[in-house]
Amino acid sequence: MTRHFDVELNELREKLSNMASLVENMIDTAIKALMERKAELLGGIFNNETEVNNKHLEVDELCLKLLALRQPAGIDLRFITSAMKINAELERIGDQAVNIAQNTTNLIQQPFFIKLELIPRMTEISKAMVNDCIKAFINKDVELAKNILLRDNELDQLKRDVFRKLIGNITENPAQTEYFLDLLLISRNLEKIGDHTTNISEDVIFMVLGQDIRHHHLFDKH
Amino acid sequence: MTRHFDVELNELREKLSNMASLVENMIDTAIKALMERKAELLGGIFNNETEVNNKHLEVDELCLKLLALRQPAGIDLRFITSAMKINAELERIGDQAVNIAQNTTNLIQQPFFIKLELIPRMTEISKAMVNDCIKAFINKDVELAKNILLRDNELDQLKRDVFRKLIGNITENPAQTEYFLDLLLISRNLEKIGDHTTNISEDVIFMVLGQDIRHHHLFDKH
Repeated sequence: MTRHFDVELNELREKLSNMASLVENMIDTAIKALMERKAELLGGIFNNETEVNNKHLEVDELCLKLLALRQPAGIDLRFITSAMKINAELERIGDQAVNIAQNTTNLIQQPFFIKLELIPRMTEISKAMVNDCIKAFINKDVELAKNILLRDNELDQLKRDVFRKLIGNITENPAQTEYFLDLLLISRNLEKIGDHTTNISEDVIFMVLGQDIRHHHLFDKH
Repeated sequence: MTRHFDVELNELREKLSNMASLVENMIDTAIKALMERKAELLGGIFNNETEVNNKHLEVDELCLKLLALRQPAGIDLRFITSAMKINAELERIGDQAVNIAQNTTNLIQQPFFIKLELIPRMTEISKAMVNDCIKAFINKDVELAKNILLRDNELDQLKRDVFRKLIGNITENPAQTEYFLDLLLISRNLEKIGDHTTNISEDVIFMVLGQDIRHHHLFDKH
C-alpha cells in the first residue's frame, strides 16, 4: 500500500465522518423545530440537504477513482465498497431528516399540540446510533457495530409504543387525525434512521471480518 | 476483456434479473392477498424473502470477486459498482413487499372492508417500474431509465390522493383507524418501491453515460 493511498483512504474516512455529523445535526434541528414549534429552524435543514447530496456524489466519485487507480484487494477493497454503501445510507438518513422537517412544517401550522416524550427519546437513540456506527467504521470496531444492532430493538419497540398511543389519540380525537398522523410518520422516520445505522454496522462488520452477517435473522427490521 | 469476464458479467446480469422477477412477484402476491383478503397467500412471500436475501449476498460476493480478480476500469467498473447498488435496491424492494404483507396480515383480520381502487393502480405502476428499470440496466437503455424517473411523479401523486382520502375516512369513522392506517402505510410502501426504481434508473444512467444525474432536483422523492 502506497503512502498516497493512505492519504486517500483518510480523506474518505473524513468525508464520511463529516457527512455523519451533518445528518446528525439535521435530525437534531428537525426535532427541535418539532418540539419547540419553531418553523424558522427548518430552512437550515433544506440547505444541509444540498450539502449532504454534494458530499454523497463526491464520496462516490472518490471511491470509483480509488477502485480504478489503486485496484485494491482484501480489506482495502472491502473498505472502499463499504464506504460506497455507507455513503448511500448516510444520504438516506439525511432524506429521513428532511422528511421529518416536511412533516413538522405541516404539523406546527396546526394549533393543536401534545407533548409526546417518546419522540425525543427515539431521537436521542437514533442520533447516538448514527454517531456510533461511523465511529465503528472509522475505528474498525466490530463490538461497537454489534452493540448498535442490539439498540435497534429498543427503537423498534418505542415506535410500536408511539403507534399504539397515536391510534388511541386519533380514535378519541378524530378531528386531529392529520396532526397525529404527522407525528406517527415522524416516529417512523426515526425508526428508519435506526435501520440505516444497522445497515452501516453490518457493513462495518463485513469490512473488518470479511464475514457477511446480513440476513441472519438476528434482528427484525423492515 | 477476457471471454471469461463476459461470462461472469452475464451471470451478474442474470442474477439481478431473477431477483427483480422475484420481488415483482412478491409485490403482486401481497396486493392480491390484500384485495382478495386471502391470508393463505402471504406465507409464500416470507419464503421469497429468504430467497431474495440469499441472492443479495451472492450478488455482492460476485461483485467483490470481480472487482478483486478482474480489476476492471471504465464502463466495466461502473457496471459492477452499479450492480452492487442495484442489488441493494432490489433487496429493499423485497423488504417493502414484506412490509405490505405484514400490514395486510393485520388488515385482513379486521371485519371492516373498503375497496380502494387507487391501491391496485399504484401496484401496476410500481411493478412496471421494477420490471423496466432492470430492463434498462440489462440493455443499457438510458431513455427507458429516464422514462421511469417521470413515472415516479404519478406514483407520488397517487399516494397523496390515497393519504387525503384515508384521512377523510378516519375522521368520519375513527373506530376503524387501524384499518385505514394499514392501508395508508401500504400506499407508502408502494411509493417507496417507486423511489427504489428511480435510484436504480439513476444508477443505470450513470453506468452508461458516466454522468451523475442524482440530486439535480428534477424529481422530488424522499
